[in-house]
Amino acid sequence: MKPESRLLQNIVTRSSSPWMDGSGGSADVVISGRVRLARNLRDQKFPHLLDERSAKSVMDSVALAVNQMNGKEAVPPMTFVPLDDVSSLDRQVLVEKHLLSPQHAQPGRGRALVTRPDEKMAIMVNEEDHVRLQCLHSGLGLETALADAMAVDDLLDEVLDFAFDERSGYLTACPTNVGTGLRASVMVHLPALALADEVGRVLSAVNKLGLVVRGLYGEGTEGTGNVYQISNQITLGQTEKEIVEKLTLVANQVVAEEQRCRDDLLETKRATVEDLVWRAWGILTSARIMSSSEAVKLWSEVRLGVESGIVHGTDMKGINEILVISQPNFVMKSSGHALTPEERDYRRAHLIRQHLASV
Amino acid sequence: MKPESRLLQNIVTRSSSPWMDGSGGSADVVISGRVRLARNLRDQKFPHLLDERSAKSVMDSVALAVNQMNGKEAVPPMTFVPLDDVSSLDRQVLVEKHLLSPQHAQPGRGRALVTRPDEKMAIMVNEEDHVRLQCLHSGLGLETALADAMAVDDLLDEVLDFAFDERSGYLTACPTNVGTGLRASVMVHLPALALADEVGRVLSAVNKLGLVVRGLYGEGTEGTGNVYQISNQITLGQTEKEIVEKLTLVANQVVAEEQRCRDDLLETKRATVEDLVWRAWGILTSARIMSSSEAVKLWSEVRLGVESGIVHGTDMKGINEILVISQPNFVMKSSGHALTPEERDYRRAHLIRQHLASV
Repeated sequence: MKPESRLLQNIVTRSSSPWMDGSGGSADVVISGRVRLARNLRDQKFPHLLDERSAKSVMDSVALAVNQMNGKEAVPPMTFVPLDDVSSLDRQVLVEKHLLSPQHAQPGRGRALVTRPDEKMAIMVNEEDHVRLQCLHSGLGLETALADAMAVDDLLDEVLDFAFDERSGYLTACPTNVGTGLRASVMVHLPALALADEVGRVLSAVNKLGLVVRGLYGEGTEGTGNVYQISNQITLGQTEKEIVEKLTLVANQVVAEEQRCRDDLLETKRATVEDLVWRAWGILTSARIMSSSEAVKLWSEVRLGVESGIVHGTDMKGINEILVISQPNFVMKSSGHALTPEERDYRRAHLIRQHLASV
Repeated sequence: MKPESRLLQNIVTRSSSPWMDGSGGSADVVISGRVRLARNLRDQKFPHLLDERSAKSVMDSVALAVNQMNGKEAVPPMTFVPLDDVSSLDRQVLVEKHLLSPQHAQPGRGRALVTRPDEKMAIMVNEEDHVRLQCLHSGLGLETALADAMAVDDLLDEVLDFAFDERSGYLTACPTNVGTGLRASVMVHLPALALADEVGRVLSAVNKLGLVVRGLYGEGTEGTGNVYQISNQITLGQTEKEIVEKLTLVANQVVAEEQRCRDDLLETKRATVEDLVWRAWGILTSARIMSSSEAVKLWSEVRLGVESGIVHGTDMKGINEILVISQPNFVMKSSGHALTPEERDYRRAHLIRQHLASV
């Protein structure tokens, strides 16, 4: 097996992702932080305008740059995975593991993923931009994620000639990314605010501060598992550091609101919360048929239990893995063959029981 | 502590009742069989017409007869418990344990319960009739229950002068009981027929055969836990043996319908049934707040699992006890003090978890 296939199979068959291991700052509310940098090669058209040969040429340039970077040992080596060689199912699992965007998982010319065993660093090649570098980090660690991403960006920059304009900054396919090319986001879990019906108020305040709120899997998935991704909208006119600082500030406020709400709930309705948490635990460890949406809902309730100290002896890492196990393509991948929706729900319940028996 | 108090406290604080221990014929469908004989003393008015002194006199006569019977060693000794000495809460627990009728648990003159440690034999004194003797039996054992009841009846008859008319048979307060004074009933668990929405059809056929169908706790509780009590309506013009034979015949048909339905379900929807059963198990072993009606519903689903061999390593006796633990007054009694409805639901969940951890 080629090294890139080995890495890929390792990633798509395991439910754990080191950036979801429950470590880091405010990890009882913040699942992860993410920093994404958009970069384009100066001498090539943007991806949506590329012909097949030029797309291939972009791939080759990035592959070369990654190769040179790997020789430097400044950052952990990354592996270049041309997506043409990756099955459709594996690509969908990579979406579920947040390593590919849904768009980038579609079949298309000259697409690649560059990543490494810890899944914390990934580059999508020829997505909306030639290079979309993302760094994922458990908990609220945007500064670290930014520093890590910029270290890789610097190393790539030594080889690649990125389109950069003194006045506008980095040029991107979509004008909303021009400037820093930076999108920073935090993935927060807000079960108590949801129970208290306050999540709308808090997130609308976040919107008014110029930040964007999306769901666990982007737009249209708001509310799923009470997980929200909060990210910056503006990439221009602020430094990377300022963007990350502002987002961190707002994230800390959301964290404080959620924590206050949890304290309130535990003080005034402890039995109700315990009941909610333990019922979810009981169903997850017992059910024989489970839909993806129910699994994520129950995951949220059990995670609240771990966050609140109601559930002991189970670490956040093990609980977070249920989020991955819940996803349809991961379930399918784990079975080794195609499954009907009914078979998938049966297998999902089995995987979750098996997983919870081991954590 | 007086012997009658000791017996009573033993009964009202334990969740087990030997007549619900899951033994006996067709025990996967039939929880229990019950035979009740109505008798009245010839020289006294019926209970609803009795003044306090006469009611007391009936009590004394029955107490004497029981005392003499106990000397004979033909049947296990029974203990006479005047209900005036029993707290209202304990009387309500006796209703939940099927040893008193709701009417007989009300405060009133000259009421008593005669029973024994295995709870299988009980006499209500001065209920609707002077003597209402019931024999309970696990599984479908009406013939045995009838023989046991008649043995006690014969012994009482040696001392008491029962009102008996050559043409009409035993005289009773309500004309519907005249003749044999016998009401035989079987308590059946029909979860598969309920799942298949066939329970209405089957029970309406039972009605057409001249039998009566009631719920777990009598009229108005139909459907509770998918438990039904089927009993004879006619007490006159048939011998005791004929009544019991006919009911047994019908019960066997209901058992066959339920079993056919279970086989069908397990063949065509096994995963669905397993999911239902294990979810119920998961919730019962995990929840922190549980209403009585939810507990009985989940009990029914878990019992289906035991009946179908889906749940192993747990005996029917242990599962059946959940029915008792679910009841509000038993929960209250077990706590030793008054509880609000919320506290009761919390304690019920606790008791059920504790119980299931031990079975």
